[in-house]
Amino acid sequence: MAGTGVFAEILDGDEYKYYSDGEWKKSSSSITVSIINPTTREEQYKVQACTHEDVNIVLNSAKSAQKSWAKTPLWKRAELLHKAAAILKEHEASIAECLVKEIATPAKDAATEVVRSGDLVSYCAEEGVRILGEGKFLASDSFPGYERTKYCLTSKIPLGVIFAIPPFNYPVNLAVTKIAPALIAGNSIVLKPPTQGAVSALHMVHCFHLAGFPKGLISCITGRTSQIGDFLIKHRGVNCISFARGDTFNSNPNEAGLIPLQMELGGKGACIVLEDADMDLVASNIIKGGFSYCGRRGTAVKVILIMESIADALVERVKEKVAKLTVGPPENDCDITPVVSESSANFIEDLIIDAREKGATLCQEYRREGNLIWPLLLDNVSQHMRIAWEEPVGPVLSVIRINSVEEGINHCNASNFGLQGCVFTKDVNKAILISDAMETGTIQINSAPACGLDHFPFQGINNSGFGSQGITNSINMMTKVKTTVINLPSPSYTMG
Amino acid sequence: MAGTGVFAEILDGDEYKYYSDGEWKKSSSSITVSIINPTTREEQYKVQACTHEDVNIVLNSAKSAQKSWAKTPLWKRAELLHKAAAILKEHEASIAECLVKEIATPAKDAATEVVRSGDLVSYCAEEGVRILGEGKFLASDSFPGYERTKYCLTSKIPLGVIFAIPPFNYPVNLAVTKIAPALIAGNSIVLKPPTQGAVSALHMVHCFHLAGFPKGLISCITGRTSQIGDFLIKHRGVNCISFARGDTFNSNPNEAGLIPLQMELGGKGACIVLEDADMDLVASNIIKGGFSYCGRRGTAVKVILIMESIADALVERVKEKVAKLTVGPPENDCDITPVVSESSANFIEDLIIDAREKGATLCQEYRREGNLIWPLLLDNVSQHMRIAWEEPVGPVLSVIRINSVEEGINHCNASNFGLQGCVFTKDVNKAILISDAMETGTIQINSAPACGLDHFPFQGINNSGFGSQGITNSINMMTKVKTTVINLPSPSYTMG
Amino acid sequence: MAGTGVFAEILDGDEYKYYSDGEWKKSSSSITVSIINPTTREEQYKVQACTHEDVNIVLNSAKSAQKSWAKTPLWKRAELLHKAAAILKEHEASIAECLVKEIATPAKDAATEVVRSGDLVSYCAEEGVRILGEGKFLASDSFPGYERTKYCLTSKIPLGVIFAIPPFNYPVNLAVTKIAPALIAGNSIVLKPPTQGAVSALHMVHCFHLAGFPKGLISCITGRTSQIGDFLIKHRGVNCISFARGDTFNSNPNEAGLIPLQMELGGKGACIVLEDADMDLVASNIIKGGFSYCGRRGTAVKVILIMESIADALVERVKEKVAKLTVGPPENDCDITPVVSESSANFIEDLIIDAREKGATLCQEYRREGNLIWPLLLDNVSQHMRIAWEEPVGPVLSVIRINSVEEGINHCNASNFGLQGCVFTKDVNKAILISDAMETGTIQINSAPACGLDHFPFQGINNSGFGSQGITNSINMMTKVKTTVINLPSPSYTMG
Amino acid sequence: MAGTGVFAEILDGDEYKYYSDGEWKKSSSSITVSIINPTTREEQYKVQACTHEDVNIVLNSAKSAQKSWAKTPLWKRAELLHKAAAILKEHEASIAECLVKEIATPAKDAATEVVRSGDLVSYCAEEGVRILGEGKFLASDSFPGYERTKYCLTSKIPLGVIFAIPPFNYPVNLAVTKIAPALIAGNSIVLKPPTQGAVSALHMVHCFHLAGFPKGLISCITGRTSQIGDFLIKHRGVNCISFARGDTFNSNPNEAGLIPLQMELGGKGACIVLEDADMDLVASNIIKGGFSYCGRRGTAVKVILIMESIADALVERVKEKVAKLTVGPPENDCDITPVVSESSANFIEDLIIDAREKGATLCQEYRREGNLIWPLLLDNVSQHMRIAWEEPVGPVLSVIRINSVEEGINHCNASNFGLQGCVFTKDVNKAILISDAMETGTIQINSAPACGLDHFPFQGINNSGFGSQGITNSINMMTKVKTTVINLPSPSYTMG
Repeated sequence: MAGTGVFAEILDGDEYKYYSDGEWKKSSSSITVSIINPTTREEQYKVQACTHEDVNIVLNSAKSAQKSWAKTPLWKRAELLHKAAAILKEHEASIAECLVKEIATPAKDAATEVVRSGDLVSYCAEEGVRILGEGKFLASDSFPGYERTKYCLTSKIPLGVIFAIPPFNYPVNLAVTKIAPALIAGNSIVLKPPTQGAVSALHMVHCFHLAGFPKGLISCITGRTSQIGDFLIKHRGVNCISFARGDTFNSNPNEAGLIPLQMELGGKGACIVLEDADMDLVASNIIKGGFSYCGRRGTAVKVILIMESIADALVERVKEKVAKLTVGPPENDCDITPVVSESSANFIEDLIIDAREKGATLCQEYRREGNLIWPLLLDNVSQHMRIAWEEPVGPVLSVIRINSVEEGINHCNASNFGLQGCVFTKDVNKAILISDAMETGTIQINSAPACGLDHFPFQGINNSGFGSQGITNSINMMTKVKTTVINLPSPSYTMG
Repeated sequence: MAGTGVFAEILDGDEYKYYSDGEWKKSSSSITVSIINPTTREEQYKVQACTHEDVNIVLNSAKSAQKSWAKTPLWKRAELLHKAAAILKEHEASIAECLVKEIATPAKDAATEVVRSGDLVSYCAEEGVRILGEGKFLASDSFPGYERTKYCLTSKIPLGVIFAIPPFNYPVNLAVTKIAPALIAGNSIVLKPPTQGAVSALHMVHCFHLAGFPKGLISCITGRTSQIGDFLIKHRGVNCISFARGDTFNSNPNEAGLIPLQMELGGKGACIVLEDADMDLVASNIIKGGFSYCGRRGTAVKVILIMESIADALVERVKEKVAKLTVGPPENDCDITPVVSESSANFIEDLIIDAREKGATLCQEYRREGNLIWPLLLDNVSQHMRIAWEEPVGPVLSVIRINSVEEGINHCNASNFGLQGCVFTKDVNKAILISDAMETGTIQINSAPACGLDHFPFQGINNSGFGSQGITNSINMMTKVKTTVINLPSPSYTMG
Repeated sequence: MAGTGVFAEILDGDEYKYYSDGEWKKSSSSITVSIINPTTREEQYKVQACTHEDVNIVLNSAKSAQKSWAKTPLWKRAELLHKAAAILKEHEASIAECLVKEIATPAKDAATEVVRSGDLVSYCAEEGVRILGEGKFLASDSFPGYERTKYCLTSKIPLGVIFAIPPFNYPVNLAVTKIAPALIAGNSIVLKPPTQGAVSALHMVHCFHLAGFPKGLISCITGRTSQIGDFLIKHRGVNCISFARGDTFNSNPNEAGLIPLQMELGGKGACIVLEDADMDLVASNIIKGGFSYCGRRGTAVKVILIMESIADALVERVKEKVAKLTVGPPENDCDITPVVSESSANFIEDLIIDAREKGATLCQEYRREGNLIWPLLLDNVSQHMRIAWEEPVGPVLSVIRINSVEEGINHCNASNFGLQGCVFTKDVNKAILISDAMETGTIQINSAPACGLDHFPFQGINNSGFGSQGITNSINMMTKVKTTVINLPSPSYTMG
Repeated sequence: MAGTGVFAEILDGDEYKYYSDGEWKKSSSSITVSIINPTTREEQYKVQACTHEDVNIVLNSAKSAQKSWAKTPLWKRAELLHKAAAILKEHEASIAECLVKEIATPAKDAATEVVRSGDLVSYCAEEGVRILGEGKFLASDSFPGYERTKYCLTSKIPLGVIFAIPPFNYPVNLAVTKIAPALIAGNSIVLKPPTQGAVSALHMVHCFHLAGFPKGLISCITGRTSQIGDFLIKHRGVNCISFARGDTFNSNPNEAGLIPLQMELGGKGACIVLEDADMDLVASNIIKGGFSYCGRRGTAVKVILIMESIADALVERVKEKVAKLTVGPPENDCDITPVVSESSANFIEDLIIDAREKGATLCQEYRREGNLIWPLLLDNVSQHMRIAWEEPVGPVLSVIRINSVEEGINHCNASNFGLQGCVFTKDVNKAILISDAMETGTIQINSAPACGLDHFPFQGINNSGFGSQGITNSINMMTKVKTTVINLPSPSYTMG
C-alpha cells in the first residue's frame, strides 16, 4: 500500500517528503501543498512546498553526481536501470493506488501504466547502451582537396543536469520517459512532478532509490510550479529541460538559457473518416481514442472529420457504444472517471455550452456531478465553435461533417496543434496521400492516435511540441556531440 | 558512330580489341569471336578471343593498379567517375547503336539505357564517398564487465580485384552497376561482357578510359565464357565475383575460392491481381511489365495470377493492348524486337508448344519469323505446363486463374525463382499482408516489377540470386571490414 | 569586378539593393547603411536599411515559396545547388574583391573562401539527397507485449522558413553553411548578413539567383541588426534560427519562439603543449592557428598552455616565426591585415594594456596603426588578466606556463567558451586521455583548431554554441521528424 | 555435475544422446564416438555417431520450426534467449567441468567461458531486437528523373536453417556466437560441435532446451565431421553455414550451394614491437597473448617482430615471466595445460624441431609429457623456418628480430593468415600508420590480440576467414534483405 512497507520511509506523519541528495527530506519551508482527490474533491495527500534553497541544494548535488556518473561504464548504468525497472513492476499495486487517488485513473489503467513504465525503463537502458556506445569515425579524404590525414571520432556525451516536468495525465509513465533516457545517457535528473500526480511520482522515484543509484543523481522536488518551476527554468545549473503541458507556468520555457528543450504541449487529435472505411473499426477506435482513459490522453481523438454521406450511420454506431460506457469512481474501474480538477471540468463545460448555443447537436444528455462528466458526443460541430479548436481534457468528442477530403485536411492543418491525426480508409493510395498531407507529428492509418509504441518517434508540430521524443530520440536529445580529430603527419589509407 | 571518332582506337580493321593495362590490344590467340545481329542473323562484329595468358596479364595489372587506387582520396575517385559519367552520356548515340545491332534493343530504349547508366555512375560516386568515408567508433564499456579502455575504429576497405560478368539483356547498364561500386570502393575491375553485348561494353569501357583512370584499374576481356570465364572464376587473383545469368558457364561460381559473390540469376515475375484492383492500371502494367523491352528484363512479369471472377475482363483488356504493340526491327523503334538468339527463340517456342498441347489458350495466333516472336498471351495456364515454372526470355506471358489469394501466393512461393513479384489491389491491408507473404526479393504494390530505382536494394531469393544489389548494397558488398583497437592504460570517458 | 557584369543588376548608382521575392529592390525606408573599409577607414559601400515592412514581404514570400519547394524532388533541389556552386566558383574574383574591401580578408584567403564555399554547396547537396531520401521503417514487435501489427515510417521534413545570421569573419562561407543545408532540406532561407560583409553576401546570393531558384525561396535583407534582426528573431513567420556571434543584437535569440536554434558564439581556443611534442610542428601550428587570417577565426588559437620546462624554447621559436609575418593591407596579400573595426581594435588594445600592467611579457613591441595591429605574443600571462579569458578577435596570442597537464586541462575547462581545443603530444595514451578530459566541442590532436573539414561535426560547448553544425548535422538540424503508422488488422511477418 | 541433475536426461548409461526435434535421442546407427581426455589420454565420454537419416530428420524439423519462429515477435525471441542465458550461467560449474575434461581448459578459464557466453547471449538478444526491428524507408525522388511516387520499405528477414560448426578451442563460447545471432534473427540452428568439446556443447544446448524454445528450432548432432559434416555442407536444406577451423572436413565449405558463409580459420598473430614501446606492457601482453589459455586461441600471439636494438632486453624479460608459468593438469588451474590431442602435440613438436635445426634459439629447454608441452620461446626465428608461417596450437612463441618497421609489416603481410595483429609503440602517429599498413582483420594498438570484445567486429583477411563476425555483424550476416515498394498514382511529399 502507498506510503507503507518499503515506502514508509518517504512519509513523515501525513506529509510526503521530497527526494534530495539521496535522502527523503522535509522542506526548509515547513509548508505543504495539498493534493485533492478528483473523485472525492477532498484533500488526499500532502507534499512538501520546496524552496529555492532546497532547489539549490538539489542542483549542486545533481551536478557533482553527474560528473561521476558520466564516468560509469554504460553496462553498469544499464544494470541499475534494469534493477529499478524490476522494483517498479514489483510495487505496481502501491503506485497504482496513488494514481487512482490523485488523478482518478481507472484502477486497471493505473496498473498498466506502472508495468509499461518498467518495460520502458528496461528497453531504454538497452537502447542507450547502443546509442552511447557507438560513435562515428570519419576520414578527411571525402572532402574535395583533402588527403586522408585527419581521423575524426565523434562521441555522444551527456548534457549534465536534466530538469523534467511531466504532465499530470500519466505522472509515472511520462516521468520515466524522461528519467530513463537521461540516466542511461549519463545525465543526472531533477524531477518536478505535477502536483496532481506528485505522490505517484514520489513512489516511483523511491523505486530508483531502492535500486541503488548514486546519491544526488536523481532528485524529486515538489511544490507550486509557479515558484520552483520558474526558478528552475531560468537556473544556470540546469542543462536541459524536458517538459509537458506548460499551462501552469508563469514563465515560458523559452526563457531558459540556450539549452536543449523538449516539449509536449497537448493536441487536438483529428480523425478523418472516408466513405470506404471499415465502420466497425472506426467506431471502436473512436471509443478507444476518444473515451479511453476518460479522453485525457494528449493523443486523444478530439475531432472526427467525417464524410457527410456516412456521418449519420457512424454517429449512430458510436452512440450505441457510448451508451455502454460505465461512469463512476476510478476504484470501480469505470470507463469514465472524474476529470482531474474542478477548473478542468468547468473549462469543458464552457466549451459544451458554447457549442450547444452555436448549434451543435448533443447526442447524449449533458450530465456532470462534481468533476465527473458523462461521455458526450457533439454532432454538427462547426468552425466557429470554440470546441472545434480548443482541447477539452475529458470525455467529450466533436463530429464535424465534411464534403471532401480536402475540407478535412484543411481543418486539421488549420489547428494550432499538430500532435497526432488519423485517417480511416481501406484505400492504400488515399491512406498515404492523406497522411502525407496532414500536418501533425504522427498520422495513424486505420487506428486511433496513441502515444507509442514507446520506441517509435513521437513529436508534435506547431504548438503541440518541440523536438521528437520516443525512446531513441529522447536519448539522443539528452546528449551532445564531441569530436576528436587525430591529425597525422602523412596520409594514411587503411589496407587489408 | 560506333567504332569511329574517339572510338576509332578500339577497332583494328573489322576486329574490336580488348582493354588491358590501359591499352587496347589484340589477343595473343589471333582468334576472334563473331557477334551475330539478332535481327539479321548475320555476323555484325568481331571481338578478340582472349587467352589465359591475356587474362593473367590483366590480373597482374589489376592487382598492382588496385594497391595505388586504394591509396587515392575518395573525392578523387569520385571526380574521375563523374568525368566518366559525363563522357558516357556525351557518346550515348554511338553506344546505343551497338545495343541495337548486338541485342536488338529498341533504339529509344538503347539511348535511355546509356543515359541512365551515366546517372547511376554519378550517384554511385557520391554514395561511395559517404559509405567509405564513414566508419564506426565503438567503446568497450557497452559490454558487461568492461571499462572504457578500448576504442575500436572500423573501416570499410576494398576487396581487391573484382571480376564482373554482366548479363546480355542490359550489357551497358548492368555492367556499370558493377564497375562504379567497385571503383569508388577502391577496387580494380575486370569485366567480361556477354558475347552479345560485348561491343557495346567495349565502347562503354572506352569512356572510362577517356576519363583518365590509372592504367590497369579497369580491364575488359572478351571471348568464350566457357574458356576465360571459368578460368577467371577459379583464379586466385580474383577477390570477388559479381555475376548475372550463369547459364553459359561450365563451372559453377561456387567453385570460386572463399570470396564474396553477388549474383542475379533470372526471375519468373509473378503478378497477383485481386478483384478490387484498378483494371486499367493492371492492364497497362502487364503490357509494360511483360512486353516492354520485349519481355527480356530479368524482372519482367511472366505469370499473372488472377482471380477467376475478373479474369475474362482483364484478359480482354490486355488483348486489346497487345494488338496495338508494334513488331519489327529495333532500328524502327518497334515495341517488340527479335529475341537475342535462335536458341533463345527455340526455347521459347518449345514452352509455347508444350503449353498449347496441355490445354493453354493462345490469345493471339503464334507467329515467329527468325528470332522475331510476336507478342503472345497464354490464358488458362496450369501447374503441369513447363511455362508455369520456366522463364521465356521474350514476349510471352502466362495467365493462371486462381480462386483464392492463398493459391496465388502458393504458386509464387513454389517457384525456384524469387526475384520480384507484384500485387495489384486497392486495399491497404491486403497489399501489405500479401507482400509480406510472397517470397521474392522485392514486391511491388500496384506496379509491375522493375530493376530499380537504382538506389533501392535489389535482390533475389532462392535461385534468383545471392546478395543484395542496388547502389548502396553493391558498394558495401565490394568492401570488407577492418578494425583498429586503441588500448588505453586506464579508463577514459569523454567529457564536455 | 564587384557590382559589374552579371552583378550590375544588384547595384543602383552607389547603393546595393537587397533581394526579396526573386528581385533586387530598394528599401521602402529610402535609407542606406554605410560599410566602412577597415583598411582605409572610409565608406566603401552602401546597403539598404530594410524596414519591418520589407521584412514582412520577405517572410510572406518565403513561406509560400517553401510550400512548393517542399514538393520538389530531391534531385532537382540538388541540381540547382550544383548549378549555384558552379556559378559561385566562376565569379570567385568579384566576390573575393568585396571580402578584401569590407573586412580586410587577405586577397588569397578571400579567393579560397569562395571556392571552398562552392565545394561545400555541392557536397551539401549530395549529402542532403541521402539524408532526406532515407527514413526508418520500424515494426511494433520489438517492444514487449506487441505483435507485428504496426509499421512506422519516419520521414525527415523541412522546418519552413530559416533565418540565418552569419558572422562577419567569413561572410560568404559561413552564410553558405546555412543556406545550402536549408535549401536541400526543403526550407526557404532569409539571410541577414553582417553589415561588414553584406556586399560580399549580396554577390554570393546573386549567384543563387542566377542558378534559377524559385522566387521567394532565398532572400537577403540588409540593415541594422538591432532593428530588423531583433524583429526577425521574434517573428512568428520564422521557423528556425541559425546564428553566429550575437553581440550586436539587443534581444537574445532565446526570446525566439519554440523553434530550433543553432548557434556559434565564439571561442577561446586553448592549446596544451606537452614536453614530448614535436616543437617544429607546434610552432608552425601556433602561427597558423593564431595568426592565419589575422587571428579572426572563431577557432583561432588564443591561449597556449605550455609546460614550463619547454616554454622558453617554444616561445623563442614562435618569436622567430612571428618576425617573418608580413603586415599591411589585404590587397597586398599580407599575413596580418587590419582588424574589422575601430571598436574591435580598441577592445584588443584594452586587453593588451591590461595584460601588460598585470605583468605579462610582450615578446614584440606593441604597434597599431588605425585598425592595423602588428602580431603580438604575450608570454607569462596569468589567470587574473582579462586576456586569459576574453577573446581578442585579432593577431594577439597568450602564453600561459603550466606545471602539470591537469593545470592545462583545468584552465581550458574553466573558460566560458568551449569551441575547440588542441593538444600537442606524441604519446598516444596522453593524446586520448587529455582529449577526453578537455571540455570543448572538438579537440585537435597535434594540429591547430580549425572549422572543418566541412563534413566533420562542429560544435561548441558552454557559451561557445548550441547544436552541432558541419554539413550533416546542419541538414539534420534543419529538418523535423514526421511518422506515419500503418495499423494492420492482424500480425504480419515478412517472409522470404 | 556433468550429466546429473537437470542434465541427467541427456545421458543414457555412459552414452551422451544428441538433440533432435526437441528431444534427446540415440542415433539410429547404434554407434558411438569416443572423446579422449587430453590430460589422461583415455576415453572420457561417448557421444552418438549420427547418421544421414538422423540428419535428415533434424533438417526437416529445423525447417518447419523456422517458419513459425519467423512469425514470433522479436521481444518473445529475446525473452527466451535471456532465459537461456540465465540458465547457462546458473549451470556454469557443470559445463566448465566438461571443458576441463574434454579439451583441458584450465578450470578457471572454463568457468569464465560459460559466464561470458551467457552475457553474450543476452547482449545478442537486445542487439537483434534493434537490428531486425528497424528497416529503411527510401523514397524515389533521390534519383535523377523521378518524382516521389515510390516508397521502398526494406526488411531484414531470416535466412532459414543455419548450420554451425564451432571450433574445439572454445566449444561453448564459439557455439553461442553462432546460436544466439541465428535465433534472434528468426532462423533455426543445427549445431555440429567439434568432437573434443561435444559434451560441453550438449550441456550448453540443454540449457536452451530448458529455456523452452520451440521443438526443432535448435538441434545438436554429433559424430564424425567427415561423415555428417560433409553431408550437411552440401545439403539443400541448409541455408547458411557458420564455420570455424575446417581442417577435419573432407569437402571444402565452398562446395556448399550459393548460400551465405561465415568462417574463422585460424591465425598467426604477429606482434610488432617498436623501440619506444613500454617494455613491461609488452612483456605482460606477450605472456597473456602467447601463453594464456595455453596458446590455443585463434587470436593468440604467435610471432613477435621486434626491433633488434631492444630484442635482448625484451626476450630476457619474457623469459623471466615464462619461468613463472605453472604447468600441469587443467583441474589444478595451471597456466599451461595439455594441448588438445596427440596429433596436435606432434605437429607442434615437428615445428620446434625444424626451427631448432635451422638455427632458432630455444630460450627454455624443450619438454613434453604426453600432450603436455612446456611453454617455449624461440628466439632468432627466421623466414625459412616452418614456424615462421605455420600455426602451432599450443604454448610456443617465436621471436623474429627486425631492423625496420617495414620489415615487420612485410612479414605480417606475407602470411597467409590475417586474423589479428598488434603493434606496441607509444607514438600516436606510428601506431596509426602501422595499423593501417598491417593487413589483418583487426590490429590491436598496445595490447595482445583478442577475440572480442564480443560486440566489436571480428574478421580475418586472406586465409584467416571470410565475413565479419562480432555480435552485430553475425546477426546481419544471418539475415537477408527483402523490399516492398508502394507505388502511388501521383507524387506525394510528406508535409508538416
